[in-house]
This record gives sequence, structure tokens and C-alpha cells, in this order.
Amino acid sequence: MKIVVVNPNTTTAMTEGIGRAARAVASPGTEIVAVNPADGPASIEGYYDEAFAVPGLLAEIAAHPDADGYVVACFDDPGLDAARSATARPVIGIGEAGYHVASMVSGRFGVITTLARSIGALEGNLLKYGLDRRCCGVRAVDLPVLALHDDPELTRERIGTAIEAAKAEDRAEAIVLGCAGMADLAADLTARHGLPVIDGVAAAVKLVEALVGLGVSTCRIGGYAPPLPKHYAGAFAKFAPSE
Amino acid sequence: MKIVVVNPNTTTAMTEGIGRAARAVASPGTEIVAVNPADGPASIEGYYDEAFAVPGLLAEIAAHPDADGYVVACFDDPGLDAARSATARPVIGIGEAGYHVASMVSGRFGVITTLARSIGALEGNLLKYGLDRRCCGVRAVDLPVLALHDDPELTRERIGTAIEAAKAEDRAEAIVLGCAGMADLAADLTARHGLPVIDGVAAAVKLVEALVGLGVSTCRIGGYAPPLPKHYAGAFAKFAPSE
Amino acid sequence: MKIVVVNPNTTTAMTEGIGRAARAVASPGTEIVAVNPADGPASIEGYYDEAFAVPGLLAEIAAHPDADGYVVACFDDPGLDAARSATARPVIGIGEAGYHVASMVSGRFGVITTLARSIGALEGNLLKYGLDRRCCGVRAVDLPVLALHDDPELTRERIGTAIEAAKAEDRAEAIVLGCAGMADLAADLTARHGLPVIDGVAAAVKLVEALVGLGVSTCRIGGYAPPLPKHYAGAFAKFAPSE
Amino acid sequence: MKIVVVNPNTTTAMTEGIGRAARAVASPGTEIVAVNPADGPASIEGYYDEAFAVPGLLAEIAAHPDADGYVVACFDDPGLDAARSATARPVIGIGEAGYHVASMVSGRFGVITTLARSIGALEGNLLKYGLDRRCCGVRAVDLPVLALHDDPELTRERIGTAIEAAKAEDRAEAIVLGCAGMADLAADLTARHGLPVIDGVAAAVKLVEALVGLGVSTCRIGGYAPPLPKHYAGAFAKFAPSE
Amino acid sequence: MKIVVVNPNTTTAMTEGIGRAARAVASPGTEIVAVNPADGPASIEGYYDEAFAVPGLLAEIAAHPDADGYVVACFDDPGLDAARSATARPVIGIGEAGYHVASMVSGRFGVITTLARSIGALEGNLLKYGLDRRCCGVRAVDLPVLALHDDPELTRERIGTAIEAAKAEDRAEAIVLGCAGMADLAADLTARHGLPVIDGVAAAVKLVEALVGLGVSTCRIGGYAPPLPKHYAGAFAKFAPSE
Amino acid sequence: MKIVVVNPNTTTAMTEGIGRAARAVASPGTEIVAVNPADGPASIEGYYDEAFAVPGLLAEIAAHPDADGYVVACFDDPGLDAARSATARPVIGIGEAGYHVASMVSGRFGVITTLARSIGALEGNLLKYGLDRRCCGVRAVDLPVLALHDDPELTRERIGTAIEAAKAEDRAEAIVLGCAGMADLAADLTARHGLPVIDGVAAAVKLVEALVGLGVSTCRIGGYAPPLPKHYAGAFAKFAPSE
Repeated sequence: MKIVVVNPNTTTAMTEGIGRAARAVASPGTEIVAVNPADGPASIEGYYDEAFAVPGLLAEIAAHPDADGYVVACFDDPGLDAARSATARPVIGIGEAGYHVASMVSGRFGVITTLARSIGALEGNLLKYGLDRRCCGVRAVDLPVLALHDDPELTRERIGTAIEAAKAEDRAEAIVLGCAGMADLAADLTARHGLPVIDGVAAAVKLVEALVGLGVSTCRIGGYAPPLPKHYAGAFAKFAPSE
Repeated sequence: MKIVVVNPNTTTAMTEGIGRAARAVASPGTEIVAVNPADGPASIEGYYDEAFAVPGLLAEIAAHPDADGYVVACFDDPGLDAARSATARPVIGIGEAGYHVASMVSGRFGVITTLARSIGALEGNLLKYGLDRRCCGVRAVDLPVLALHDDPELTRERIGTAIEAAKAEDRAEAIVLGCAGMADLAADLTARHGLPVIDGVAAAVKLVEALVGLGVSTCRIGGYAPPLPKHYAGAFAKFAPSE
Repeated sequence: MKIVVVNPNTTTAMTEGIGRAARAVASPGTEIVAVNPADGPASIEGYYDEAFAVPGLLAEIAAHPDADGYVVACFDDPGLDAARSATARPVIGIGEAGYHVASMVSGRFGVITTLARSIGALEGNLLKYGLDRRCCGVRAVDLPVLALHDDPELTRERIGTAIEAAKAEDRAEAIVLGCAGMADLAADLTARHGLPVIDGVAAAVKLVEALVGLGVSTCRIGGYAPPLPKHYAGAFAKFAPSE
Repeated sequence: MKIVVVNPNTTTAMTEGIGRAARAVASPGTEIVAVNPADGPASIEGYYDEAFAVPGLLAEIAAHPDADGYVVACFDDPGLDAARSATARPVIGIGEAGYHVASMVSGRFGVITTLARSIGALEGNLLKYGLDRRCCGVRAVDLPVLALHDDPELTRERIGTAIEAAKAEDRAEAIVLGCAGMADLAADLTARHGLPVIDGVAAAVKLVEALVGLGVSTCRIGGYAPPLPKHYAGAFAKFAPSE
Repeated sequence: MKIVVVNPNTTTAMTEGIGRAARAVASPGTEIVAVNPADGPASIEGYYDEAFAVPGLLAEIAAHPDADGYVVACFDDPGLDAARSATARPVIGIGEAGYHVASMVSGRFGVITTLARSIGALEGNLLKYGLDRRCCGVRAVDLPVLALHDDPELTRERIGTAIEAAKAEDRAEAIVLGCAGMADLAADLTARHGLPVIDGVAAAVKLVEALVGLGVSTCRIGGYAPPLPKHYAGAFAKFAPSE
Repeated sequence: MKIVVVNPNTTTAMTEGIGRAARAVASPGTEIVAVNPADGPASIEGYYDEAFAVPGLLAEIAAHPDADGYVVACFDDPGLDAARSATARPVIGIGEAGYHVASMVSGRFGVITTLARSIGALEGNLLKYGLDRRCCGVRAVDLPVLALHDDPELTRERIGTAIEAAKAEDRAEAIVLGCAGMADLAADLTARHGLPVIDGVAAAVKLVEALVGLGVSTCRIGGYAPPLPKHYAGAFAKFAPSE
């Protein structure tokens, strides 16, 4: 089984970390290919960055037609619906994956993300996925995506403080780590804080494996119907859907 | 007051029709500039087309920094959140505009759109705007966006049938026309079917006028905070947010 | 265009202030007529006062049949549904107006009202309008309606404290001022607190202008159908609906 | 125990029928006093009629200060919140009563009302009471309130048809009769249609008895705090709250 | 009228206390029979205990076929749906009863329970009953069920602190006591804290009396249809439904 | 990895079928042990049967303490919360599994179950899992659980009719088969009806594999905290939680 994990930003160091996190949980027969677009933002921190990350994400999916499934490795799940229209193979976002896994091991979960500006987008996704009722709050640690690894001790401390606040104030029973850049912290935080701490990258890889193993495809009717063939003008002409 | 109405698809005939619909309701002192991107899909029919329409939409907004407000003239409201991050001036989507206006003149409203594949995206927006509780159903007439004007009689008949079904089966008290290409039909349908039929383009123009007249800007904190300065790679480098 | 702004309480000084706030934002061609009933409570602070304000409100609407639209200038929006049944012309409540405008310029808004006893009624309205999901909290400043102007400095300070709490604790991105008596504070508070602060009176005037400009009427079927002709006994005989 | 049942319309024949229905289920020690206002609409069919029924309703409650509890005997529950502010004694609306009872004997209930124009008001109440999730639909029989007794056979037939539709199409497991004028039909319909059919008048009487028996009062804080003392002008001066 | 109050745990001292609380509010003609199963947990504190309490609860209901109605006297309402399938006579849970009564005397209510581990189950019930929207929070006093009477002063103090927190932080207007073991505290707490404090045992008895007085049965279709006749193996053979 | 699949009813032929379905999708290294309790109902069709199936389910989990994860193989997910309290190893219900998988491959899914009496329980679960918003309806084929294999052609035809109705009337984009006895039909129905048809047994096995692969345990705080040590009386003494 081949899973293509697309980091929708253009920071290759982050793509490599995501690839490592994915490989760490992949089953023996699963090949992980971690890629990122050539065009787009260096990190995704808000709706504007998302907008310019999605075309590159879709390009990467189109460039790997032989994959058995795909992971969108940004916690905002940008372009997830478009990706599902573009291929019948399973596509899972790491935000989505974290929420579903947390729902299966706890009664209510909290989310810890990087910057407060992302909270609205995550809440919007939770609402859309129908899992907002299971989420007891999204908290931000106020560290930019690309700074998470600058001072690992500070990162760990901020996330730890947020987890304890989520337990005490929101009655969180599990935590979803809300950034692909936090992937390597989950195991340690689980042990330290006494509740399941879930990394979306790992969760998404296992859920894609599950869907592929089930032989289930993304539906091809309704909102995820394949794009209709039509003309795309200018710079995007190459992305035009054909018959 | 200058309002830039962006048709996010690249079909200029449609942009012209949208411009006409906008001018028909604009107040005396309002200048309407109707534009469309050079790059992107000829029509927007689903999530995939949306993804490739948003960069061009944002480019048009950036190209008109002197506007007092903006209209996103596609009923799916693609890129609305990104656009609001990109400028403090009011930005209104025509879907959003139609739903808000319908909520102020009826207890529950129905939506008539083109293709069934768009229903999911519209329902997602209604949920996010918090107005799903006021909407009693979205119905599709099964005509592609660019075919609406091919056979005006068929279009009118299909929409009429859908309106009557929404009245009888969903208890719709008002109708929102779910496509920028239906803009010229609202007045006639209102008279014919005995309930308010609302065109989103016209609604959006009047709501932008209202917001500009109020002197209200889009918030600059939370999810709509301006994008952080950062590197954008490759083809999108020119869109990179700067200080 | 003539807009009749009805202050549903009987305090004429407040009616005058409301009229000034309305005129300050009205478009050049808009005539504002600010009125209040002869019968009813001096201020509206809870469900009981509302009950005795509504007949007078409806009397004022009936007394001005030539208006193009109406504003119900009490933040509880008392009698809004009854008013919409009584006339096909657009009727907007100032609470409703504030919520809709805030929804179009922010992801989530807070509301600042006078007394805690009003919070339940406002939450009930938000639920009914379907905009409760966009509201992150209603806070009271614990000052009676008619005392807001007794000590302007205290009023401003209390509201300022509440706004900062709404930003910090509720992640409010915009604020709706929850009393017609706060109308003159919006601009200053917007500047001082760095987020859109919306006055309902101004918002309602601009939304009525928008609806009139659109040529949209209130629906005449369903819950807003005109009242059926029938006998009204005693003191209310004059209000009996006729054919 | 003395329960004052207020029919908020001014049709005394209906008040008498309501009184009979109330007495039929009252416990041995319960005295039922059925009254109606002198002023107001002959029947309540929509928001406008409601507005002019509420002052009279509150007058009747004020005129019977020695009651142990009150019933608002109109299915729209007009003025229920105001009544609760006006007295610490329990007040139950017959719509509310029917919904609560149905929730305790079924998983989902349907509502059968008179005219379609009332459906919106009932749905609004269900939403506010939090019981909309238990209601599977409100259906109208298209007969005016005061015509229910003109042709009893037609009334019974129309209601029977609606009940069967609610069972078949909405999976209703219980039915709430949505008009005080249907009170005498419940037992027969229960037997005929094989599911609990609940009359709101009877339900409200038993629930007031239950609350009085429990010694529970309506809360005096928050939205139901007693009205603040203040001046009421003109015709409503006599209703002004005093210390 | 005979009401069987089933304490689903096996602690007879608690059953006796529940019986006293039930008798204290029962109407003159009502006989209260308080029972508990022979088999099962000594107290119910979480989902696991619930699972082993339900068979005994159903056995007690089956053992008292001549009752006019039943109360499930554990605040988690364990087995309520199964009990309703097993008999057409009204069955009310004490959690359910408390929520419904609180909804009729306040705009929003808080719940005070014993251990935090029970909060999730109570929130699940509120969601199912559709009354979660009326509940402003569930708070735990961190005292086990069987310890409530060990140190009455501590119990009263902890509950008092929780009530004040619910008033101040959650705007609770009424309180539901979330454990059958708190039944004797309601009156005193009501007086002390100035808001209605409701005991579920008393509330359930009065609601069963109300339903029996109304002549309303539990529906026999849908989810509460009588169990189909079938084979039950082993230890549960005696519970097998027969024709 | 060892997964214990518990069929909570006592029909061993059904347990064998479930075991086959589980093994058909299990990964190479996964051992499937399919068991059922000795005590309890022959099939689970409603709340009453559920009540007597749960103790046996928990006994089976306790009897297999070396499993890496568990599947509750009844579509009502009976005892799922209790099972999660009883073990830190992942436990997944087949209803839950089907809903989560359907949510990841479609925008909205329908559910096809056996008897209408089960619909309420399934809707209750969907509400609790937070996935009711993604479900567009539950339909029953009116065939008892144990009759599904009596006339395979009839079963297939009834399910096929229900799927087509769900597509046409509910806009279902995926189908979850709502009974463990339908496990072997999924692949064929997927091909025949052109949308993903998901069997809960297979889905649950793959999700347990995913959770085990992730190294995620069920949370041990909040509602899923381990049961407190206490006395269990009589027949259930052996199930009493110990330190």
C-alpha cells in the first residue's frame, strides 16, 4: 500500500518531519511518500495562506495517481473537499483524523493549536465534520508553526500548560495536537499528562490504511462528484478537468 | 462609494451580466466595477473549481485596493474568509447576502441552485453562517451555470417548479436564487410565485453599501487577522503577505 | 425613502437620541421619523415591560402607513414578528440588525447589554434568528437603560471593561451594543478597543435602506401572513384586523 | 389548590370548554377558575393576535393573586415569559405542557395545529423550550380555531388524517393537539390511532398541580426577575410595576 | 394510585431514604412502594455500575405489574428506555424529572452531582432529552453517593459552594440536585440560596402522578414498542419476552 | 495483534458469520477471536434486549484480558460506554465504526437497519457521537435480525430498495449497513448501487487495528474512568470492580 502524505506548505524540513512521523506508525507493507508543493506559502497560518496552498496540494495529488490513499498534512485540512472530488482514493486530513480518533477513545477532547488566528478555522471544520459537540475547546499556545522547533523546551512547556488547562477547565479527556509540527510530541505528552494525546499525522496514516484495507472509496456522487470537464484559463489551464 | 464585484470565474459574459445586476440596484453615488480573474475555471461547480478560483479572486481584490467594499459574486462564496483576511474593507459573498436578506423578510427560506453537486457546499456555508436553522432546504434545477441562458424558458420553468415545491413541501416563505447567473429573474419570479425571491448579487451590493455607510470594517483580530508576512514559493510568490 | 423608527418605550428623550443616531447614518435621500407610543413603559427591561410595549409599537406602525420601512428601536426586538405580520414593508429590529452586521464582519461577536435580566431574552432571540452559533456571549454592565446617560464616564468605563473581557475570555472579534441608549458610543469604542463595535440603531437604518433599495417585501405567507379579520374586544377593538 | 386557567382570547364559549377540560382532569382538591380577558382578540391565530392578547392575560393573572398556579390556555403560549416575571407561582403554557408530557411518554412526538400560519410560532417555542429535537413535525389541519366545533366530524377527520400522516411520514410516536379548542378529542383519538394523543389543557393542569405539590416556585432571578418599578404611560399606567 | 419507586442500586438504607422523600410529596391517594433489586451494585457511579443495575431494575418493574406508574430513582436514569419498552404504564427517571421541572420554572438550570465521573452520562441524557440547551452546566461536589450522609455538614457546604458557583459563573436560575441521596436537602437549599432547588425523586413522583392522572400511557410503537418474543439464554432466561 | 469481537447476542451462527466478516478484512498479523455470551437474548431488537445483552458482553471482555482491542458487534452499540470503562484497550462499536468511516468518504450518509423499532436507538447514538449532522436518515427494511439469512434474495431486494430511496429522497452519498447480519452484502451492494456501502463489522476491525497501531488507549478519566471498587450483590457479585 502506498500512501502519499502531502504537506501543503513549501517548507521541506517540515515535510521531512511529517514523513518520519508517518513512517513511525505505518504498517509493514505501507510505503509512505511525503511531498510538498513547489508553489505556495512556507507555512499555513490562517485562511489567506490556505487559499494559496490548495492548488499546490491538488497538484501533488494529481502528480501521484498511483497512490492508494492520501493524507493532507496540515491541521486546517485545507482543500480536503476539493481533494476528495479529485480522486476516488481515500483522502484524510490530519485535523479530521485527530478528531475522529479522539472521539473513539474519549467522551470529549480538547485541541491544542499554534496561533489563536487558526482557532476559527478549526472550529469551522469541527462544525462541518459534526464533531464540534465532542470537542470541549480549542486552545492556542501562541507559537508560530515554524518556531515550534526553535525552542523545543518552550514548546513542550506551553503545550503542557495548555493541556493541564484543558483538563481542569474544559474537562478534556483526550487531546488532539493541532499542528503537523507537533507530531513527535504525542507519546511523551500522553505519558506526562495521563490522557491520550493524539497526533493527527499518525492518526491520518492509520485511518487511510484502515479505509484502504476496507476497500472503501470516496463517494463519487453529491458534493464529491468528479469535477465537470471545462475550460480553465491562464495559469491554471493545466488543472482543467477533462472527461 | 466604489464597490468591486468580483466574479471568481473567468467567463466575461457572466461578469457583464453580474455587473448589470449590480448596477441596477446600486445607489446613485455608488460606482460598480465588475471584474473577473484572468486565471481559473470558466464556471464554478463544486469544490475543485472553487479551489482554482480563489487565487484569482484574491488577485482581483489586491488589484483594486481603492475600493470601499467587495462582493464575491459566486453563490458558493469561495474564498470569502481569505478575502476578509486580505482587506479591512467589507467583503460580502452573494450566497451569504441572500441568506441574510431572506432571514430578515421571512421565517424560513428555500434556496434554488443549479446542480445537485453544489448543495453540499451551500449547506456547509449555511451551517457556518449559523443560518442553516432558517433554511428549509436547498433544491437543484439540474442546469449547468453556463447553460442558464441557453434556454431561458426552460430555466424559468425549472426554477418555477422548484419554487412551488419549496413552498408546498418545505414551507418556504422566501426563496434565495443560488447562482449569480439567475440574477435577472428575481423580480419576475417574486411577482409570479407570491413570495420574496432574492438575488444574491443585488443583495450583496446593498449590504456592502450598508456596511460602508455604517463605517464598519471587517475585524482585524481572530480568524480574520491580516496574513502574517512570510515567504511564498514559486508561482504564488507575488501573493506573499508583507509587513 | 421614509423610515419610521419606533422607540417602543415612552421616554421621548430617548426617542430623540435614537432619531439623532438614525439620521447620522441615513443616506441623503432618506427621511427618518422617530416616534414612540403614548401608552406603555418608560423603559423596557425584561419580558413584562416588553408585553406592554408591543401594542403601542404596533399602533405607531399603523399610524405611519406611508413609510417605506420600519425600525423597532429596542434591543430586545419586542413585537418584531407581530410587526412583520402587520405590514409588507420591511421591519428590522435593532438587536437583529446588530447581530446580522456583526456576522458579516467577524467570525464571532459578543453583545454588551444593560442589565443581566435582559440576557435571557437576547439569547432567545439569537436562537430564533439562528445566529446564536456566531455569538460568543452576552454580558451585562449592570446599569439601567435610563441611567446610561446619567454618568457617561461610568457607562463608558463599564462597557469598556465588558468589551475587554469579551475579547479576552470569549474571543469576541466584534461587539454589538445591546441597547438603543448606547447608540452614540459605537465609533469611539471601535477606535479605543480595536474591533468593530456596532450600534443596532445605525445598523437597522442601513439594513432597512438596503431592503427597500432591493425592492424586497416581507413575505405574506406562513408565520408573517397578514392577521385574519376578526373581532377584538374592549380596549383593543381599534386594532382589530379588517379585510 | 386553586388554579386559574386563563384563556387569552375573549371568546367565552371557548373559555367554558377549556374550563370543562381542566376540571375533567383536576385532582379532587383542585379548584379550577377559567377566565378570559375583557380586552383583546376573539381568537389567536398568529403573532399579531398574540400581541393584543398578552396585556389581557397579564391583567387576569394580576386579578387573581390568590391562585396557587396559572395556566396559559392558548397553544402558542403567548405571554408565558411575561407571566412568569409577574408572579412567583407556577405558570404553565398548554403548548409547553403538551410537549413536556409527550417527551415523557414517547421518543418523538408530532403536533397537530389549526392553521399553517401558526406553525412558525410553535416551532419557535419548541426551539426555545429545547424540545425541538424531540418533535418530528408540526402539521396544520387548515381549520380556524373558532370553526373547530362547527363541524365536529370534519374536525375529527382532518385531525385523524394528520395523525396518520405524522405516524407514517414523520415516525411520530405520540401526538400533541395544538389548540385549546381540541381538548375534548384526546381520549377518543388515543383509542382510535393507537398512540398517546395529548391535550395541552389537561396536561398543563396536571403539571401545575405537580409543581404546586412540589412546592416549587418560578425563579425570581435572571430573565424571570420581577419587573422593576417604573412609570407606565397612558392606557397601561395601571399595569406599572411597583415596589 | 400506586407508584413503585425503584432504587436501582442494592443499598436498602438508600431505598428507605428515597421512599421517605417520595412519600413526603405524594398526594393523599398515592401509595408509594420503594424497592431495590437483590442483584447488582451497591451504588451507581458510572457506566459500568449502570450496566449491572439495569437487569435488577427491570426485574423489580416486572415484579410489580399492578403499579400505576414507576420511578427510576437513580439520577443517571439507567435503563429508562428499556423500562418504557417493558410496560405501558408511565416510567419517569429522577434525572429526567428534575430537568423537566427546572425547565418549567426557570430559563436555565444547573445540575449538582456527586462525582465528576458521572457528568458525561448526565450530559448524554440531557442531549437525548433535548434539554441540554436549557442546562447551563453540571458540577460535581466530589463526594461518593454513599458518603453523602457520612458528614451532612460537609455535604451541605460542598453543595452550597457549587450552587453559588453555578449562579455566579453559569447564570443558573434553578438547580437540580443530581443524586437520589440528596433528596432531603432541596427545601433548605431553596431557602438558603434564593432560587428553586429541585430534588429529582420528589419531581418524579409528582410527574408520574400527573401522567397517571392524565390517563396517558407510554407509546407502544417505535423505540418503545414491547420487546419481541424470543429466546433468552442462560441466567437471563426468565426475562425472555413472551407473546 | 489480537482483536476480540464480541457478538452481544447468544446466537452462535451469527457469531460465526461475524467472525468470518472480521477475518476477511483483518491485516495479516491480526488474530480475530469471535465470541458471544452464554447468557442473554438470541438477538437484539430494541432497548429491552440491549439491557440483558450488556452484562454478558462485559463478561466476555473480562474473560479476554489479553486482547489488544475489542469490537462490540451489534449495531446498537450496546454497553459501549461501560466496556470503555472496563478496559483501557480500544473498544469500538460496529455502529460507531460505520458512521465514522462513512463520514470520511462522503458528505452525508444513510443508514439501513432491520426493524423500525431500532431507529430511535440508532438516532440516539448518532446524536451522542456527534455525527447526527452527517447522517441523512435511518431506514428500516422490516426484517428481523435472525430472518436476514432466511431469504437472501428478499433481504437483498429490500436493502436495495432502501438504498435507492436514501439516494433519491435523502441525498445519501454513502450507506452504512445497520446490522451485523448484513456484513457479507457490502461489497456487492457497493458495486450495484454506485456508492460506498459500509459494513460495521469490517469497519470496526480496521479502526481497532488503527487505534492499536497508533498506541492510543481509551482515556481513564472522566466518564470512562475505571469503575470504583464496591460491593455487587447477588448474581452480579462476580462482576464487582476491585482495586
